[in-house]
Amino acid sequence: MSDQRHVANDEIGAARAVGPEAVRRGLAAVRTGTALPLAAPIRNGVGYGLVGRAAPVHLMIRTGADYAAGLPERAGFGYADDVITLPTHGATHVDALAHVWRDGLMYNGFPAREVTSRGARHLGIDRMPPIVTRGVVVDTCPGGVRSPADPVHRDELAALVADAGVDLEPGDALLVRTGWLAAALAGDADSTSWPGLHHDCATWLAERQVVLVGADNPAVEVFPSFDPACQVPLHIELIRGHGVYLAELMALDALCAAGRPEFLFVLSPLPLVGAVGSPVAPVAVV
Amino acid sequence: MSDQRHVANDEIGAARAVGPEAVRRGLAAVRTGTALPLAAPIRNGVGYGLVGRAAPVHLMIRTGADYAAGLPERAGFGYADDVITLPTHGATHVDALAHVWRDGLMYNGFPAREVTSRGARHLGIDRMPPIVTRGVVVDTCPGGVRSPADPVHRDELAALVADAGVDLEPGDALLVRTGWLAAALAGDADSTSWPGLHHDCATWLAERQVVLVGADNPAVEVFPSFDPACQVPLHIELIRGHGVYLAELMALDALCAAGRPEFLFVLSPLPLVGAVGSPVAPVAVV
Amino acid sequence: MSDQRHVANDEIGAARAVGPEAVRRGLAAVRTGTALPLAAPIRNGVGYGLVGRAAPVHLMIRTGADYAAGLPERAGFGYADDVITLPTHGATHVDALAHVWRDGLMYNGFPAREVTSRGARHLGIDRMPPIVTRGVVVDTCPGGVRSPADPVHRDELAALVADAGVDLEPGDALLVRTGWLAAALAGDADSTSWPGLHHDCATWLAERQVVLVGADNPAVEVFPSFDPACQVPLHIELIRGHGVYLAELMALDALCAAGRPEFLFVLSPLPLVGAVGSPVAPVAVV
Amino acid sequence: MSDQRHVANDEIGAARAVGPEAVRRGLAAVRTGTALPLAAPIRNGVGYGLVGRAAPVHLMIRTGADYAAGLPERAGFGYADDVITLPTHGATHVDALAHVWRDGLMYNGFPAREVTSRGARHLGIDRMPPIVTRGVVVDTCPGGVRSPADPVHRDELAALVADAGVDLEPGDALLVRTGWLAAALAGDADSTSWPGLHHDCATWLAERQVVLVGADNPAVEVFPSFDPACQVPLHIELIRGHGVYLAELMALDALCAAGRPEFLFVLSPLPLVGAVGSPVAPVAVV
Repeated sequence: MSDQRHVANDEIGAARAVGPEAVRRGLAAVRTGTALPLAAPIRNGVGYGLVGRAAPVHLMIRTGADYAAGLPERAGFGYADDVITLPTHGATHVDALAHVWRDGLMYNGFPAREVTSRGARHLGIDRMPPIVTRGVVVDTCPGGVRSPADPVHRDELAALVADAGVDLEPGDALLVRTGWLAAALAGDADSTSWPGLHHDCATWLAERQVVLVGADNPAVEVFPSFDPACQVPLHIELIRGHGVYLAELMALDALCAAGRPEFLFVLSPLPLVGAVGSPVAPVAVV
Repeated sequence: MSDQRHVANDEIGAARAVGPEAVRRGLAAVRTGTALPLAAPIRNGVGYGLVGRAAPVHLMIRTGADYAAGLPERAGFGYADDVITLPTHGATHVDALAHVWRDGLMYNGFPAREVTSRGARHLGIDRMPPIVTRGVVVDTCPGGVRSPADPVHRDELAALVADAGVDLEPGDALLVRTGWLAAALAGDADSTSWPGLHHDCATWLAERQVVLVGADNPAVEVFPSFDPACQVPLHIELIRGHGVYLAELMALDALCAAGRPEFLFVLSPLPLVGAVGSPVAPVAVV
Repeated sequence: MSDQRHVANDEIGAARAVGPEAVRRGLAAVRTGTALPLAAPIRNGVGYGLVGRAAPVHLMIRTGADYAAGLPERAGFGYADDVITLPTHGATHVDALAHVWRDGLMYNGFPAREVTSRGARHLGIDRMPPIVTRGVVVDTCPGGVRSPADPVHRDELAALVADAGVDLEPGDALLVRTGWLAAALAGDADSTSWPGLHHDCATWLAERQVVLVGADNPAVEVFPSFDPACQVPLHIELIRGHGVYLAELMALDALCAAGRPEFLFVLSPLPLVGAVGSPVAPVAVV
Repeated sequence: MSDQRHVANDEIGAARAVGPEAVRRGLAAVRTGTALPLAAPIRNGVGYGLVGRAAPVHLMIRTGADYAAGLPERAGFGYADDVITLPTHGATHVDALAHVWRDGLMYNGFPAREVTSRGARHLGIDRMPPIVTRGVVVDTCPGGVRSPADPVHRDELAALVADAGVDLEPGDALLVRTGWLAAALAGDADSTSWPGLHHDCATWLAERQVVLVGADNPAVEVFPSFDPACQVPLHIELIRGHGVYLAELMALDALCAAGRPEFLFVLSPLPLVGAVGSPVAPVAVV
């Protein structure tokens, strides 16, 4: 909790750096005006095999088949309706600041014990504002899948950003492609280890005051971690230490293929009161 | 199915009008760079009392309280996790083109019988692209709640848009405030009738080729309708006839209060494969 | 925790009194051999309006309508399938001994803090054996609905049992009709107050060593209670103090109409590991 | 539909054979008065890997941990509460007569198209009465697991019953142990093939007018079947042809170990209106 930028009772963390200036920087990054979706398909019964996160469930309440079977179109129309059940971290999603802690304390000193069966009293995903800012994407393994044995270290990450010709500025969102998601969707990924950032990236990212780091893997950071003391050290330093948001299981292949490293980035969580994450469908406008 | 603009096998409808030009028009509408969320809070157990749409359910899988009760922070951290169950039309949402039909036919002639327990084979919400365009908002009852007995007719709607100093262009999104949602959130709204658009607005809207019409009520259109032959005539004409998207239960009070009738509008559905709607958290950048 | 009959680590409570003798007493009570179901219908979307207990949800995974809409009967057959979501205390159910506590302690001194998001480590419903014993039923308001203002006191309860010509013996199950359920199913019951037992019945019931007390109301005991210090004093004394099971929202009208006060009683919980209650479909064989 | 015993509009099938005589036969079979549970444990997140049947979900609404984290015991008590989601055929369960069909027709000629998103209009599990009768158990592979390549044929089944010294009578329930469930619970079973009855048993069982056939496997019958024309021929002949109930995923090891081939059998489905199956916790009293 050494971050001097913390404000008493602040619950939005790094999103405080996303003001009109960041929005304008995002707008200015648009070239062709093409909007690219960054969420992976959510299919009934198809999850990622991550511990504790069941597959999404999509069930129908009313179908066209019901009408084919004899239900009349009363009142001049027919309709279909449905319901979804989603682990908040089981599809493309953003973590709430209440998602992780250490020594019983979350971001800005809020006690973890406030997260009860009723949900998070503070730092829930409903406190997170929509993020509209400049996005920057880097590809750590063009055309392939990075190895979990080869984490992306700080120097490599910095070099990738520099090669993209971008200076990260406060409030920017940085997206990192590893190739894991495409492999997972193809039925070909390991859900017990995955490529990602080494935790030595955390301080560098926090210093740049990025609002969010996203990746096409389950945790942004590599797993297993290379920190003998912590399984998710980058989570702890970024989320707990600096209020930086992590967005996971993002679909970044089309964005990388677009060849445009900076863009307008929009990510808006569902205002699930007290939830510790939200499925999202972020957009890049290149 | 008289719309000449239909394309064989088209599944995205009016979204075809949202190209780079619409995106640029949206970008150009930004003044202050303030991002306003347009989704209403989603609370466990609190629904809108609409028939067939259960209240959202938010349940925890792991809590900070578990740790307070003795669970150790293994591997250097503690965490919380949770799961949500949402009717796709039970919170701020957008209807898929597969949501409604007449005479067994949906938009572009796709048969309703294709919507089975497995979901929609065509026109599901996963086919809808993210919408990034110019938004326009009008307030049909500033500071109050419109009456269901006083539907918003075409001439009034046209006048409101004109008064806002905006010419609707193909691909724009039009948002309409009625005051119903604020009343509902205050526990003070009727869920069996609500204010909204008269179906005589449908043709006018379709002619302007708007991509989406949104409102802070359950159906965009007034209910009960004033069409003796159909309960949801505007749905049928806009969704089925023209592939125009309807977004409902939107939170528009802050946007109206901002006093800026045009803005950058971003609405991105969760890619729920085969679903007939999606909860969304749209954003207006004014 | 003054009950001398407690056994170290015992997790089944009063069910220890249900041995072969109780089973034989139950068998001997059968006259006509008619089996009567004692569970109330569970309908999709229809709950009892009790705080925190959502209505049951029944959704189809596969329907006959799907086949009517064109799905072929592959492999020589068609089928339907479905899924249910039930609050464990939201339909006819039995409370686990882990359901309630006072001063952080449950039955037999097990600490309440052991009930975490993972469920109950001890005293969960999976520890409860099936109950096969003699049942005894009394009707506190024949043909009508008892008033919440008129709780059933110990003397009245004892008199009703005596009038039935039955001596309660250790291991018997006592069922009490109040009329509340029939009114609730008819849409005519208050879910914020209901008729039931006064807590002065608790000691009397515990002394008789009944294994279970059931009623056609939400809590067996009257609500609000007449104990200024506790909202559910009978729960605390019977469940926590003596490990006696409470079965609630039972359908007792047909059983009362059968005119046979004693019978074979069978109640078998689903072995939901770690759950604090289970929906049940008890049976009386008269 | 050749069964002469069908009655117009009958929806309970073979349960019509369970009258007072069958109940008395069940009562008379009791020796020691020991009640044995026949349901397998239901654990959060642990399913059988059967296609289309998600694992059970058990989530807490309120925990003791919440109190450990600071929630006060208001009104003199603390409590825990929870909710379950179960595929109706995903744990120990009984099939409704509406579960399967051929040529669009279910038992007694009811059309399959009546099973819509609203559930089964006829033959739902809510129509099934509680079954109280004599049970008979046979073990097809004492101490081991039967092979799917070695289905239990009619002659073997008849011999096993004869060896048990029992004459099956109308209304009896026959339970068949294969060893599959124990292997599955040990993490050691195949969920794409399993041992069970050959379909040549179906006619023999129907002739004996058993009310129910149960087994410790997913389908009573062997899978894959040995009928080139049908994947589940025994289902079709018994359920559709004769209204005989099938109970699956039963836990029969303790019952077989008890060494008592006949017993009082009680199976009572949850009255899930319109559902095509129900989780059950059957009991054998030996």
